[in-house]
Amino acid sequence: MCENHDALSQAYLNYRAELIEAGLLIPSGVDGVYGRGGLFEDIIQRFEALVTQAGAPFKPEVMRFPPIVSRQTYLKTDHIENMPDLMGSVHSFCGNEREQRKMVEKAHAGEGEWVEALSATDVMLVPAACYPLYPAATGRLSKEGRLVDLKTFVFRHEPSVDPARMQSFRQREYVRLGNPQQALSHRNEWLERAEKIHRSLGLDVQVVAANDPFFGRAGKMMKASQLEQELKFEIVVPICSEEKPTAITSCNYHLDHFGLAFDITTAEGEPAHTACIGFGLERIALALFKTHGLNPQAWPASVKKELEL
Amino acid sequence: MCENHDALSQAYLNYRAELIEAGLLIPSGVDGVYGRGGLFEDIIQRFEALVTQAGAPFKPEVMRFPPIVSRQTYLKTDHIENMPDLMGSVHSFCGNEREQRKMVEKAHAGEGEWVEALSATDVMLVPAACYPLYPAATGRLSKEGRLVDLKTFVFRHEPSVDPARMQSFRQREYVRLGNPQQALSHRNEWLERAEKIHRSLGLDVQVVAANDPFFGRAGKMMKASQLEQELKFEIVVPICSEEKPTAITSCNYHLDHFGLAFDITTAEGEPAHTACIGFGLERIALALFKTHGLNPQAWPASVKKELEL
Repeated sequence: MCENHDALSQAYLNYRAELIEAGLLIPSGVDGVYGRGGLFEDIIQRFEALVTQAGAPFKPEVMRFPPIVSRQTYLKTDHIENMPDLMGSVHSFCGNEREQRKMVEKAHAGEGEWVEALSATDVMLVPAACYPLYPAATGRLSKEGRLVDLKTFVFRHEPSVDPARMQSFRQREYVRLGNPQQALSHRNEWLERAEKIHRSLGLDVQVVAANDPFFGRAGKMMKASQLEQELKFEIVVPICSEEKPTAITSCNYHLDHFGLAFDITTAEGEPAHTACIGFGLERIALALFKTHGLNPQAWPASVKKELEL
Repeated sequence: MCENHDALSQAYLNYRAELIEAGLLIPSGVDGVYGRGGLFEDIIQRFEALVTQAGAPFKPEVMRFPPIVSRQTYLKTDHIENMPDLMGSVHSFCGNEREQRKMVEKAHAGEGEWVEALSATDVMLVPAACYPLYPAATGRLSKEGRLVDLKTFVFRHEPSVDPARMQSFRQREYVRLGNPQQALSHRNEWLERAEKIHRSLGLDVQVVAANDPFFGRAGKMMKASQLEQELKFEIVVPICSEEKPTAITSCNYHLDHFGLAFDITTAEGEPAHTACIGFGLERIALALFKTHGLNPQAWPASVKKELEL
């Protein structure tokens, strides 16, 4: 059931062209980097309202992190082991005026080596919305644990013609920190809740066991183990391809990975377990536009009602 | 009337500690990089509603860009000449598994040189909310020109203990593209409108001619020229210091700088002139909390009414 790769690329390019023509996405000259038009943003805001509503009974703490995170925090997450090819490290110019003149000359001559004048700063781009939370949660949890509502622009260095594979996009997450039971329940309950939200919007979603895109040969074992332990589930829906549906929401159980790395413990002093649900806001909007058409006023009445359109 | 620098630093540190204690800011371990608590975010959203309302009669096009921008676009803006020390260049790992193992070893050994394994990507962090717009506006404007509503996380590499000097923060902007008269009117009218909004929130603001933090000795001339030509005005208010009030909103007339750089022309074929008003959302929230106290429920009735608190 494999599609021809060129046919798929063509489907991506066609949908991207439609989105750009409609003013929903604004091209930047770099694959995977787009501005969002007002209507695209509006749909995201309306979808987010549903997420907020679904989370309200559980009284989450709201935190909003910027798109950058401490380099020290980044290095504690194992991202450099697992997905180094996706990372974004932030570098700046710390030299003197003579060095700057040289750098500018090179840049104007079109020499990419101008960047050799730069130094690494103390920050990285955020790879996943929950990373900045963990160092802020270091310490002992109460018996109830914590539930946190997050949203951040995340970065993934994977330029692609697929409009759903952006280099910079927003994840809206609910993260649970607590004992294993609390974390696992969160993951399982939100998977169901999220499936319901997506179905209420007319998206023909499927829930599938999944794995992260671990790097290299060692990564193959990580992928297999993650699948086998059923640590990651994705909610997928066809956007440009029936055969290769797109993950629009992801539910992860991290075991005690972050608890150990950031010294977060349960009330009993055990390493905390964590789990998250992450809504890929841009992908959800893209799925809605693909499924129901580019004009929200013409979407099915039930979908319009859910989104208060 | 100069304050002692140490006294000012102490005032910054004290206010920062208060904000963190109240859960309004969440420290990250890096100066100038903070998470925002739910209440802090809520105040920003309420303030933004006032900005949206003030802009509505002029029917702006809404565009939302991610926090990264094409490197090519960045290099067309003269930022590398004018403020290279503030830039953020995004680098990633593009090597093989052997190179990755070496990099990880160095990182775990605490050797900062692990970053030597990284390469520059096609993107930079956005230095100002309006930069990503200009390449998307290349071409000939209509007689009416354009008015665009923007919001983006911008990056400035200037670690500071001043909670109002963040490395990553949001600018909400209205950008006007058109002929000189259209651009200048936009700048002047919004300066008045913004002053009114800030005053309605009980902020004792002042409007002052200002200059950008141009780099180096050549930058001194740029600063003087910008001041003399009255191209930049800031709306300032005391946050941690009466003597050194903080710019919370900025109004800039760019002349034909971006029109020339990005080949944007008026209906008559002349280089377009541009102007913008930029609201520094985090600084405005910080000014409100400083002026009225950390509990919005106890803010003056008139301010609560404006913000629908």
